[in-house]
Order: sequence, then structure tokens, then C-alpha cells
Amino acid sequence: MDVKTAIATKRAVREFKNIPLSEDEVSEILNAGRRAQSAKNRQPWHFIAIRDKEILKSLSELGSFAGHLAGAAMGVAIITPPQEKRFSILFDAGQSAAYMQLAAWEMGIGSCPATIYQPEEARQLLGFPDDLHIYLALSFGYPLHETNSRPAVVKTGGRRKFDDVVHFDRW
Amino acid sequence: MDVKTAIATKRAVREFKNIPLSEDEVSEILNAGRRAQSAKNRQPWHFIAIRDKEILKSLSELGSFAGHLAGAAMGVAIITPPQEKRFSILFDAGQSAAYMQLAAWEMGIGSCPATIYQPEEARQLLGFPDDLHIYLALSFGYPLHETNSRPAVVKTGGRRKFDDVVHFDRW
Repeated sequence: MDVKTAIATKRAVREFKNIPLSEDEVSEILNAGRRAQSAKNRQPWHFIAIRDKEILKSLSELGSFAGHLAGAAMGVAIITPPQEKRFSILFDAGQSAAYMQLAAWEMGIGSCPATIYQPEEARQLLGFPDDLHIYLALSFGYPLHETNSRPAVVKTGGRRKFDDVVHFDRW
Repeated sequence: MDVKTAIATKRAVREFKNIPLSEDEVSEILNAGRRAQSAKNRQPWHFIAIRDKEILKSLSELGSFAGHLAGAAMGVAIITPPQEKRFSILFDAGQSAAYMQLAAWEMGIGSCPATIYQPEEARQLLGFPDDLHIYLALSFGYPLHETNSRPAVVKTGGRRKFDDVVHFDRW
């Protein structure tokens, strides 16, 4: 799938089939995140790839809209230094997350980011060091519904119009 | 170009040929950013697409490593609410930036993010509203050197090893 098509067709997927991802698919997704560009090439991320169902269920309860993690074939917790260190950390985390999601989409695997609102509970659950933080995790899995590209669904995930978003040369 | 190849081959490009991008290329890049996923589909971004050489030159002087903007065929200033509002703003800005850069790369167009360290000067230059902020801008243009995928260059932009970045189930 070319990049243009992947970007144009990608939809948020929050319901997944109960089938695992292959080891190749898992590696492909994680390597995509690992290869993302970052400020000064710092790569300020660790990824905890979670396939254990109990851990996924527990993590899904640590954010208001994170419930979709419970049904994911894989969750990826993005672990970074705290945002206070520099604003590029979350920007770069977003770049790596976009790479992972597009790489997954090319393989027919859906995804959705989830905000983690209880980072200390997540630290207990996942065991990452005190000097690092979790802001978000991603769900991955084969879409439960084949209908995710229906116009009705597209509409609910609609984007602001080009002229509302883009300015030329000055605001 | 498929997504996997785009991600595997993409390199940071900071030196550009002195030729403009076509209107189609400009639209393709900006639409890619516009289509990115974001928390609650808030799309917390405006893009100022800058092709005016004087504005690019001035913007390039507002960050320590932003010099490459001066030679870009197009700069894209990413304008968002301030990060203090919620941490997903910079994460989502990063997702949109990754989409723009991958869409460009598919067309043979290189790119590089630049951190803007003097946001108030940038506001004067670009005229965006007081309640919004600029953290980063992206340079786009055709690579000056065809040698960006040489091993030597790849090495300087090397990535941390898989096992250093990825953990399974728990840290």
C-alpha cells in the first residue's frame, strides 16, 4: 500500500478480532516506531509491547477512553522521559506512534491511541523506571468490523477543511 | 512507495535543491498532515505553509538548528494551543508531522523538523493569534544530494537497537 493511500484510508479502530498478530507483524510495527525521526536523533522512547491479556485489561482501566486496549491483540506502551524535560519528547513520541500505526495499517492491522491518566498505576503494572513516564499507549489488532471505511464512519472521524487548517506564508 | 519502504528509507534532509514544489505536491503534504489522527479527533493544529524566501530566512534564525529552513522550498510552521493545555497537543502535532514527512518522502521530497526557540518572534513574523503557539516547523524540498541513503549517512542517523528499545509485556 502506498503512503498516500495509507494516510487517506486509515481509520481509528477500537474493536479487534480475537486473533493474535504474527511475530513478523509485531516486529514490523515496533521497528517502524523505532525508525522514526526525533530531535537530535535522541529517540526518546521505549516501547513495551503487551500481549498478555491480563496486563492489557489492567492497562485499559487506567484511562477514561483506554477501554479498547482490553481487546487489542497487542498494546504498545510508549515510555519516555517526562515532558517537562523538553517539548520535543511528546512530539517525537507522536512521530513514532504515527509510524507504527501506518505500518500496521499497511498490513491490515487497525490501531488507536489511548491516553493513560493514571501513570503511577501504569508504572506499577509495567515496571518501568522512576525517571521515565507514560502518557499514551496504542492498541493494535485486526479490525472486528470490515466496515470501518464506510462513509458513515468516515464522517464521524471527519477532518477540518483544508482552508480552515492551512494558511499560506502568514496567518 | 509502500509504507514499509518509506519508513525504512527515509532520511533527514537539510539541504535542498533550489526548485519549487508543485501545487499538487504542496497540497499532498498539507493534506497528509490534516488527515492525521488526534486525541478525540481535536486536530489541534494549523499549518502555515511558507514559500516566501524572506519569511523562511527570518524563521530559520529563530532556532539554533533551524538554519535548514532558509533553503527549503517550503516550510510548514505547526501552530497549536500551548502544551500546558494537555500533553496530547504535542503528541498529535508529532503525528501530523510524521504524516507530512512520509507523504513528502514518497514523492521524493526530503524534510526535517526544526525547533523554534523564539516563539514570540515567530508570532510577529507569522501573525498567528496570541492563544496559539509555535514549537516546531518542518522544512521540505528536493534533496540537494542524491547521496542521502549512503551507508555513511545512514550511520550518522542510526537508530538504537531493537532490544534496547522494545520490551515485552513488562519492562
